[in-house]
Amino acid sequence: MGVERVQAWRWDGQALWLLDQRQLPARECWQRCETPEAVAEAIREMVVRGAPLIGLAAAWGVALAVRAWPGRPERVREAAGRLVQARPTAVNLRWAVQRVLARLEREGFDFARAEQEAQAIAREDEAACWRIGQAGLAVVPDGARVLTHCNTGALATAGIGTALGVLRAARQAGRRVTVYCTETRPYLQGARLTAWELAREGFDPILITDSMAGALMAQGKVDLVVVGADRIARNGDVANKVGTYTLAVLARAHGIPFYVAAPFSSVDLATPDGRAIPIEQRSAAEVVQVAGVPIAPEGVRAWHPAFDVTPAELVDALITDRGLLRPPLADALAEAARLGPCDGAAAAASPEQRRSPTP
Amino acid sequence: MGVERVQAWRWDGQALWLLDQRQLPARECWQRCETPEAVAEAIREMVVRGAPLIGLAAAWGVALAVRAWPGRPERVREAAGRLVQARPTAVNLRWAVQRVLARLEREGFDFARAEQEAQAIAREDEAACWRIGQAGLAVVPDGARVLTHCNTGALATAGIGTALGVLRAARQAGRRVTVYCTETRPYLQGARLTAWELAREGFDPILITDSMAGALMAQGKVDLVVVGADRIARNGDVANKVGTYTLAVLARAHGIPFYVAAPFSSVDLATPDGRAIPIEQRSAAEVVQVAGVPIAPEGVRAWHPAFDVTPAELVDALITDRGLLRPPLADALAEAARLGPCDGAAAAASPEQRRSPTP
Repeated sequence: MGVERVQAWRWDGQALWLLDQRQLPARECWQRCETPEAVAEAIREMVVRGAPLIGLAAAWGVALAVRAWPGRPERVREAAGRLVQARPTAVNLRWAVQRVLARLEREGFDFARAEQEAQAIAREDEAACWRIGQAGLAVVPDGARVLTHCNTGALATAGIGTALGVLRAARQAGRRVTVYCTETRPYLQGARLTAWELAREGFDPILITDSMAGALMAQGKVDLVVVGADRIARNGDVANKVGTYTLAVLARAHGIPFYVAAPFSSVDLATPDGRAIPIEQRSAAEVVQVAGVPIAPEGVRAWHPAFDVTPAELVDALITDRGLLRPPLADALAEAARLGPCDGAAAAASPEQRRSPTP
Repeated sequence: MGVERVQAWRWDGQALWLLDQRQLPARECWQRCETPEAVAEAIREMVVRGAPLIGLAAAWGVALAVRAWPGRPERVREAAGRLVQARPTAVNLRWAVQRVLARLEREGFDFARAEQEAQAIAREDEAACWRIGQAGLAVVPDGARVLTHCNTGALATAGIGTALGVLRAARQAGRRVTVYCTETRPYLQGARLTAWELAREGFDPILITDSMAGALMAQGKVDLVVVGADRIARNGDVANKVGTYTLAVLARAHGIPFYVAAPFSSVDLATPDGRAIPIEQRSAAEVVQVAGVPIAPEGVRAWHPAFDVTPAELVDALITDRGLLRPPLADALAEAARLGPCDGAAAAASPEQRRSPTP
């Protein structure tokens, strides 16, 4: 599409650079993280966000810990524990940290090895996004009008995104897609990040406030909803950015299919259902102001769960890198887990194929 | 409660003063409107808002027209027509203008008469709010946790408010009430106005973003929802601030009662159902910025219906100055219309009684 894909992270061999997503689209500022603590802080403060991308950032955080404490595995394990604690809901964080740590435990605490594993996670996430996009082609017809929430694109992953990956793949396949994006208060990821990503690529997205989703559906303007996930429990319940559940209830009430796009690294088979997913409570200060401007009288209380849980029965399919999983989701997830990941080499090649335009 | 009630308008005998609600709670600025055009502009630009209050403001606008064009009824009629056009959805605007005009047509275009009629509308709206509050006592038990949307209080009416009037009356009756208010994007009437009004009176409200309503209900934190109305059609369909319909769908999905509080002047028996209610489309600029700060990339499109329609079947009762109207709403509205308003003198006395604390 003539536009280079945004990449919100860079590794320079010594440090992790993160695009400060809190300042987009007004400013493009980069933060250099030289220590695992700096990475954990960047995750906590939402310099970097998006379940797959915070997983990747934390993997780099482990590599930085190995570099900081050569020959001190116990210090690396402690740093890894702190990285996992940075945010509680997205399971990719724990998954990525444990993956790097497991390799180090197996093969020795070596910086180059940790680097290699983080790079592998990045490559695989890129490939996973591509596969998610391909799996999504089955549910995005030509002319589809799609509602999405929060940001699930190149700013949230190491690839083309999850829900936005589905839209990009559909467009790449020649399908016309109209995208409505919710602004996604309180952090405005939809207005600031999704609208920015999509506008750069000529999607010409239409922004709505979160409150307008019901009216939009009632007027027949939405053919399907596709969102991302921060954690998918064993029974198919989905934790995702607060507001997702509201969209799922609305979609069901209007007979509109509701899809969740996520890599299998967001699936947590150890969590039986949504009730067991820890939901991060963030500061009220993030609700009573917008972009630093106070919007409510001083001292007013606010409730701020960063995520909510959508029960499996409201999800029409999970769009994953292991294919389109249809209800009953518990069975489909168990089967996909049993089959394991697709062939790594083929998956890694896919993004390259994507870059070669087909005639 | 030891706090003087906010009043968002004042008449000084020559001009209408309006509290600029766009600037609350940061600043309390008053605009002086000396002409009907100035009033229409203030309504259009949302200096003044809230269905009953824009009706009252427009009534004063007609009085200003009589003052500007003595002996020129045709000019007054033209000015009245422009006032009615200022905003299309709230029917109170048309109702109030037509009421003043009808009296002038009957008794002569006299400034004092127009003033008198506008004052009567103010007094009656104050009384209507009080009656709404009394009718609402039947549905707000002690300890109720109530979710409300937009602003329906003293800033939206000439009295204690509609939905907020219900909450105030419940508290006055000694009931403990926990209020959750949605911030109500894009104009943030909930965060800026409702939280401000309620905090002043010691309600200690809890602010949520619009997107959190579903999660709040799913966690069992809401016992009932009460909102206002900009227009109620003959069949009971309700047009109100965008986002209301989303709350109604969510409430039904969770088995939570959903109430609409409004004076009978918001009922439009000439409109058969919600499809016939004109929904104001406002500028995209109001969506892509918050409090003047851009939140989306330049040039991004936005959809901005200022209102949405909640079908009658999602409304558990209308709380009106003619009592609590239960489904079938079409029948209840027809009956209430047939019975006519309550006795004016008694109604006018009620707010005074309210101010005398009962032991």
